[in-house]
Amino acid sequence: MPFSFDLIKKDPDSQARLGKMITPHGSVNTPAFMPVGTQGTVKAMTPEQIENCGTSIILGNTYHLYLRPGHETVKKLGGLHKFMNWPHPILTDSGGFQVYSLGALRKITKDGVIFRSHIDGSKHLLTPAKAVAIQEALGSDIMMCLDECTPYPATLSAAQKSLALTVQWAKLCKEAKKNEEQAIFGIIQGGTYPDLRRQAVDEIVPIGFDGYALGGVSVGEPKEVMYSIAEAVTPTLPENKPRYLMGVGTPEDIVFGVSCGIDLFDCVIPTRSARHGLLFTNSEKIVIKNARWREDNDPIDKTCDCYTCKNFSRSYLRHLFVAGEILAMVLNTIHNVRYYMRLLEQIRAALENNSFLKFRNTFLNQKGGT
Amino acid sequence: MPFSFDLIKKDPDSQARLGKMITPHGSVNTPAFMPVGTQGTVKAMTPEQIENCGTSIILGNTYHLYLRPGHETVKKLGGLHKFMNWPHPILTDSGGFQVYSLGALRKITKDGVIFRSHIDGSKHLLTPAKAVAIQEALGSDIMMCLDECTPYPATLSAAQKSLALTVQWAKLCKEAKKNEEQAIFGIIQGGTYPDLRRQAVDEIVPIGFDGYALGGVSVGEPKEVMYSIAEAVTPTLPENKPRYLMGVGTPEDIVFGVSCGIDLFDCVIPTRSARHGLLFTNSEKIVIKNARWREDNDPIDKTCDCYTCKNFSRSYLRHLFVAGEILAMVLNTIHNVRYYMRLLEQIRAALENNSFLKFRNTFLNQKGGT
Repeated sequence: MPFSFDLIKKDPDSQARLGKMITPHGSVNTPAFMPVGTQGTVKAMTPEQIENCGTSIILGNTYHLYLRPGHETVKKLGGLHKFMNWPHPILTDSGGFQVYSLGALRKITKDGVIFRSHIDGSKHLLTPAKAVAIQEALGSDIMMCLDECTPYPATLSAAQKSLALTVQWAKLCKEAKKNEEQAIFGIIQGGTYPDLRRQAVDEIVPIGFDGYALGGVSVGEPKEVMYSIAEAVTPTLPENKPRYLMGVGTPEDIVFGVSCGIDLFDCVIPTRSARHGLLFTNSEKIVIKNARWREDNDPIDKTCDCYTCKNFSRSYLRHLFVAGEILAMVLNTIHNVRYYMRLLEQIRAALENNSFLKFRNTFLNQKGGT
Repeated sequence: MPFSFDLIKKDPDSQARLGKMITPHGSVNTPAFMPVGTQGTVKAMTPEQIENCGTSIILGNTYHLYLRPGHETVKKLGGLHKFMNWPHPILTDSGGFQVYSLGALRKITKDGVIFRSHIDGSKHLLTPAKAVAIQEALGSDIMMCLDECTPYPATLSAAQKSLALTVQWAKLCKEAKKNEEQAIFGIIQGGTYPDLRRQAVDEIVPIGFDGYALGGVSVGEPKEVMYSIAEAVTPTLPENKPRYLMGVGTPEDIVFGVSCGIDLFDCVIPTRSARHGLLFTNSEKIVIKNARWREDNDPIDKTCDCYTCKNFSRSYLRHLFVAGEILAMVLNTIHNVRYYMRLLEQIRAALENNSFLKFRNTFLNQKGGT
């Protein structure tokens, strides 16, 4: 079944929406959050554990999989879903952001990005057509256009130049796409300039994509700036297509983003924080190595239904973390991913009950989870 | 229910036996293998995964848990079973072997061992009574006597002196034991001297323990020496008590040990090998990082029923290992532990069918799994 998006309900009190994405590998209730599976694995989790957290879609990183094990290898082995034993939807990024993050190791030209592998220093050229070909080989449900991520800060003329390249590349990605089964999303750049963001919408949307992402956010700009971009740009995107806020974010960012009309999020925060011993709850963020938990027999969060909270105490998790045990990373990650999934479940329930604005205001006033 | 051991069947063709240990936390069909849970966790596995591998009993390390998080803390939190969420049987060692392994950091006196913590250098005294008290606080189902592990090589007089200390400490351990629910096993030392091993049996058995272990094996002596000790000493132990070959071993060692009349084994080989990317099969030991597996879509072992083999290819496991992913350790460990559990299941089935000797000879001739 090819990709489609059903807009189920618009919140009467905000820009928020309830929706459902249908993909070849199953459906995704939106708003949704995608745990990040960088190298063909959501770090420290088995696919069974990812599923048990209530995850319906994950993100795969094209840059990493292209370099290792290689997209042709993944294709030969049956595609990314089979390779990593994740039979549910996958969105792949274009590789652009990772390449952009290489700094001195990459050079942007009008044709694409020349970069050196962080693994072996080998030289590669990533073009719009190549980014699509790699994602087609991986076989993701949703592909992303190659874009140039406008840095922060950027002068107006640099941001203009960057946007022009992103628009040009978006056209080339659309042209390069061969597989009808896979969806492709366009990316709205424009930095912190409202006029440029409007121009990006005006130029990217007519190319005709299955969904639209806000890019170049969460790249160092102040949070208020990111919020104002999301607030201003999201409602100008086509209503009948999913909207994705790339690389975002904290629990509050997600609640705020939903109120702007965002349907899809991804971020390494839950998984990376877990590996560093930072655990989310609605009342506080727990630093598990703290001596305070040494003899605490309660779970991380009494209201949480994850495997970790149902079976282990803070004292045990502290012990594992202090002792450097692998199981610390596993159990912490399960909790944080479940925390995010529960948050999204609560958001969708609130949207169904017409109580989202109340939920949002309570949540943001609590500063829950940060 | 207090500890007991039922000898179910003696193999007509060898010294091997089928049995069942009953403990306060459930029963254990023997011969059995105990995965090692050093710091309150079988490294890289959730308790659910340990169970799913068919594990009925695990080993906990007194030395590690005494130092971190501390046996009093574990006791306060409800004991080791609750702390680590393992509701099934646990055997704890005495801490003696780990302390012995500290080398320059420890000094043996007639009263016990003075040692410095490998974590913070703090000074501690481990006496026979203390070793029992720690294990009582942990609440294991089976405790081990504090012994002096006779090193290899040792002169006759050194081995004699060492044995005398072990016998003296065994008496003190028996006297110190307060908890009726917990079993305690005595340890047979004597180095590589058959006469001393016989003397050890003559002096330890009359003290009266719930089971007997062969110690001071797998400490650097040639494999033939270990085999000849197991072969000579095991049949001289009381028939109605379980017999435990400490720290052993490879799959072949286990098959050989069973044929000598051993009921219980423990070793870090399956878990440690897994973390180093060495995977057991009956036909070969797979080095998963080998380029040979780059595009191999088969499981580690087509005959294996573990979560890893049912869901993932060698190519994927190779990718995870090369990329340094935590999931590599998790999936590899699940496979190796299941391999060991299946081996013990096969051994018990062969004993039931009176085909153990054939199984043993086929297995050892194949050099399967090494």
